[in-house]
Parts: sequence; structure tokens; C-alpha cells
Amino acid sequence: MTASESPPTLLVLDADPLPRLGRLTGRARIEHADASTLAERLPSADVLLVWDFTSHAVRSAWPGEGPRPRWVHTASAGVDHLMCPELAEADTVVTNARGVFDQPIAEYVAALVLAMAKDLPRTWDLQRERTWRHRESQRVAGTRACVVGSGPIGRAIVATLKALGITTALVGRTPRTGVHGPEELDRLMARADWVIAAAPLTEQTSGMFDARRFGVMQPSARFVNVGRGQLVVEDALAEALAKRWIAGAALDVFEHEPLTPDSPLWQVPNLIVSPHMSGDTVGWRDELGAQFVELYESWEAGRPLTNVVDKKRGYVPGR
Amino acid sequence: MTASESPPTLLVLDADPLPRLGRLTGRARIEHADASTLAERLPSADVLLVWDFTSHAVRSAWPGEGPRPRWVHTASAGVDHLMCPELAEADTVVTNARGVFDQPIAEYVAALVLAMAKDLPRTWDLQRERTWRHRESQRVAGTRACVVGSGPIGRAIVATLKALGITTALVGRTPRTGVHGPEELDRLMARADWVIAAAPLTEQTSGMFDARRFGVMQPSARFVNVGRGQLVVEDALAEALAKRWIAGAALDVFEHEPLTPDSPLWQVPNLIVSPHMSGDTVGWRDELGAQFVELYESWEAGRPLTNVVDKKRGYVPGR
Repeated sequence: MTASESPPTLLVLDADPLPRLGRLTGRARIEHADASTLAERLPSADVLLVWDFTSHAVRSAWPGEGPRPRWVHTASAGVDHLMCPELAEADTVVTNARGVFDQPIAEYVAALVLAMAKDLPRTWDLQRERTWRHRESQRVAGTRACVVGSGPIGRAIVATLKALGITTALVGRTPRTGVHGPEELDRLMARADWVIAAAPLTEQTSGMFDARRFGVMQPSARFVNVGRGQLVVEDALAEALAKRWIAGAALDVFEHEPLTPDSPLWQVPNLIVSPHMSGDTVGWRDELGAQFVELYESWEAGRPLTNVVDKKRGYVPGR
Repeated sequence: MTASESPPTLLVLDADPLPRLGRLTGRARIEHADASTLAERLPSADVLLVWDFTSHAVRSAWPGEGPRPRWVHTASAGVDHLMCPELAEADTVVTNARGVFDQPIAEYVAALVLAMAKDLPRTWDLQRERTWRHRESQRVAGTRACVVGSGPIGRAIVATLKALGITTALVGRTPRTGVHGPEELDRLMARADWVIAAAPLTEQTSGMFDARRFGVMQPSARFVNVGRGQLVVEDALAEALAKRWIAGAALDVFEHEPLTPDSPLWQVPNLIVSPHMSGDTVGWRDELGAQFVELYESWEAGRPLTNVVDKKRGYVPGR
């Protein structure tokens, strides 16, 4: 870019609070859109920042032909909410927030695993009832976890669980050193004490945790989903818990978010429900903004982008 | 012991369920006592096994003079419930359950620290109210813990917190490599995000966590007690929480156990109450029984006992 050129147009699909993009002053013409204005503004944008990572507006607004952004960045790890055939086929580069959520989500999974092993939800209930009832709890060291999803989040979960003395197996789409292929999933789930879903939502993973798969788990085992709601057949999980096929579960993500007050999931026995917050530690929005600014500076300088999503697969292919 | 001698008398201060002592058949004359019969039976016992580790009966029943057991073993880490001046001055050896509870308690502390960092108690409340409310939570990696009590339990807590990326400082009665002395406690508590009490109850530690000490903590910091209830001035902690001097606390042990339904502690804001269960993982009673049988075999063979309590200090001195 020379001084005489006008700066690129950066369109932000807004969410509250806005990203801090002050460092880009004069280097980008920053425009804003919401779901209703996105389609109209997309053709004139060079870059789209999907700051509202809960929105599915990109899918419907993406232009089938004609001018369109050369680069789309989403402030999320998953890209399922924006991918559509037209975007997949365009020469537009898609990047994601790979790296920001790994450690927070790994800690969140450890918190859930330990809370279930130590029976903390029951402890809370008993405290509310002012009842002293000693119970035996479980050691996590020496138990076995099967972590599904071999991206940075899955690998961070494995590292954290290992640090607690848990034996882990990692399952991904492509078998490689340290990663089991999908054909080994049933065998690994059958012997796991903990099954952790941290996979991207793709055609291959949608609905993968169904009645049959909960059926292969041990009655003492527990299931955790911090990936995407659609990985799980929610009715099947609710039934597996009600029938005690498995001992417990925790869902941080759901097929429809936010969960409405009339959802039966709030009251499924031995199910912990949390509002899609596993990765969101204090300062997370600033980290997401800073990550985008850094990527923008690479893009502006013509350097190769990191965190580039394989649009056919629906995630950033890794090690 | 030769074949012609009668086996030693092993007196068990009973609790339900009884210890599995089958391996000692023919090698000990096993007798049982409860609080009401202990004083009468103690003089004829060679060994006392304090299986009911909640009982204070040994203190009042211990004979001031005359015949008494040569060895007392308690199925607990703490010995405060049985120590008295007469036992301290006797030539009786006292041993404890050092080692059985270390890893379980360390996991329990990690569970509480992570549950508080990830706001899980509030998540439970909101689930009960069928309310979806996203919140930001805290990373534990990079935070600071001050662990008070440098025995095997305190050291296991340090190792587990370190594995989660927490920077730790260990405080004990005797400063040595890796252990700060008591004079550094205020300074370390003032900069800690987590203060973990895991000390034995002694004259030096009784009431050590009082209003002044909660006052030096950061408003964002949290306190956990898995040692003995009397380490903490409970009223002072309740006030520190009510006034938001500190952000939260978890107590697994109390001055009076069990906590009665009318205790105000059940409802102190941001206080987690659990029924003295941090070390009690499935199989713990079997482990305690097996540990005693192993010690008995050493004692019977005239080999030196491990886990010998320094009766003046009130714990097993260690590294």
C-alpha cells in the first residue's frame, strides 16, 4: 500500500462490546454492520471481521458472485457459523482465533472433571439444605480420558488432564503420532472414565455422540462437551443419563443457544449445564482483538497469514 | 515373639465399618472398645488402633500411670484428637496415616480452586433457576498460591497446583529449602490469589487464620481449609467474606464437626462448605487398614516403625 492509496475497508460484524481497533487508525477504513446490513455492505469490504461469533449472518449474506472480501476473520475457534458453499469456493481466506481459548478451555474441562469426581454439585445441594453428609469421592489420578478433537484445544485438554495424572487418548480425523483415527473411537470410549468432546463441527462430527456411542460407555463414565452443541444428540444424552447408562455429563454448548428456560436439559439428572463460557476468561475479548490486529498487520504487509482455515474441512489443519 | 508366648493385645477404638485385620489372625489378640470402655481396657493393651479418628476418647482415657500400650496408631493424618500431656510424656510410640490422604486431598484442593476460578457454584445456582447467563471466568495458570503446612499433604497440594501452572509458595514451621518460615506468612498471603491451609493443629497453628490475616489478603483472593477446623477463626472468616475483604473461601473442616443445621456457616456468602471429605476417596478405609497391618508387621518383627509422630510437635517431622 502506498501513501496515495486509500486504506482497505474493514467491515466489522458487530457485537457488544466492540473490538479495540485503535491501532488500525488510518490504516483501515472501519465500517460496521449488523445482521440486517451485512449483505449490503459485504461487496465493498476488503476484510470482514466476524466479531459477533454467535451470528449466522455471514452464511446468508455472503455474495454468490461479484466483489467480496479477500479475507474473513472470525473471533472464535469454530467456523461452522459462517461457512457456506459459496464462501468455501471463493478465493477468500478465512482465519480463526486459534490459540486464544486453548488454555482456558483446558482448565474448564479440568474443573468439570474434578468437580464430578469430587461430587461437588451434590455438596452444593447439601449445603443449601444445611445437611452434613460425608461421601466417598473419586481419585482422578489413574483414570482414563478420551479426548475427541486433535486441534490446539484438544491438545491443551490432554496436557492438563495428563498433569493431573489422568491417562489420555486423543482422537482426530487424521491418525498420526499421538492421535488415534475415528475408527478407534468406540474402543477408546468403551474404556474411558471421561469422554471429552472438543472437535470442530463438520459433516463428519455432527451428531457423532448419539445413543449408540453413549451405549458403549461405562456406567461409571462421564461425558463433557466444550466443542459445539451439534456434536451431541441431546435427547440421546438426556436418555443415557436418565437410564444411568453413564454416571454424569457436563454441557457448555448446545444445539440452540442460549438455552431457553423451558428446555428440559436444565433438569436432566447428573447433567451440568453452563452457558458457553468455557474459553472466556477475564480479558478474552482484548485477546481476541489483539490477535486480529496482529493478523491485520501481517495481511497489510503482505506477509502470510497464520490460523488459516481449511475451508473444505472446516478447521485449521495442524500437527 | 516365640511360639509359646501369647500374641500381643491389639485394642481397636471402633468405628463403623471395622478395619479388615484378617491378616493379623493368630498374631494379635484383637479386642474392641468404644469411648465408654476405652479407659478400662487400655491398661491391658499392647497396641491401640484409633480407628475412630473422630473420637477424642483417647485424651480422657489415657492412663496417667501404670501399664499402657507401647504403641498407638491413628487412622488419620492429624493427631490432635488424641494427644494429651500424659501421652506426650509416655514412652509410647504414636504413628499416623501419613501418605494415604496426600494425593486425594491435593486433587480436592485443585477441584475447589478450579471451581471457584470458573464460578461453578454460580453456574449451579443459575442452572437451578433455568437461567442462561454468560460470565467471564478466571485462568488459574499464572496465579499465585500460598500453601500453609509443609508435610506430605501440603507438598502434594503444591505439586498439583504447580501442574496447573500456578506459582506456589510453601510455608512450614521450620524454614528449609523450598519451605518458607512462619515469619514470611503475612508477606506471602498478601500477594497470594489462593491461600491453602493444610497444617496440623498445634499450639502454634491454632487460630492462625484470624481477622488480621484475612485482612492482609487481596480482595480478589480466596481461602481454602483442608487441615483442621481450629486453624481458622470461623467468625473472622465469615466476617471477611461478608465484608468482601476476600472473594471466596471453602471449608472442608470445622471447629465443631459435624456442622449442625443451625450453624451460620452454611449460608455465608461465597463460602463453600463440605463435610470433611477431602481425603476420602473410594477405597480409603481399605488403604488405612492395609497401612496399619503393614506397620503392625514391622512392629511385631521388631523393625523400626515409619510414620512416627513427634509427640511434642504434634506431627511427623519430614524433609
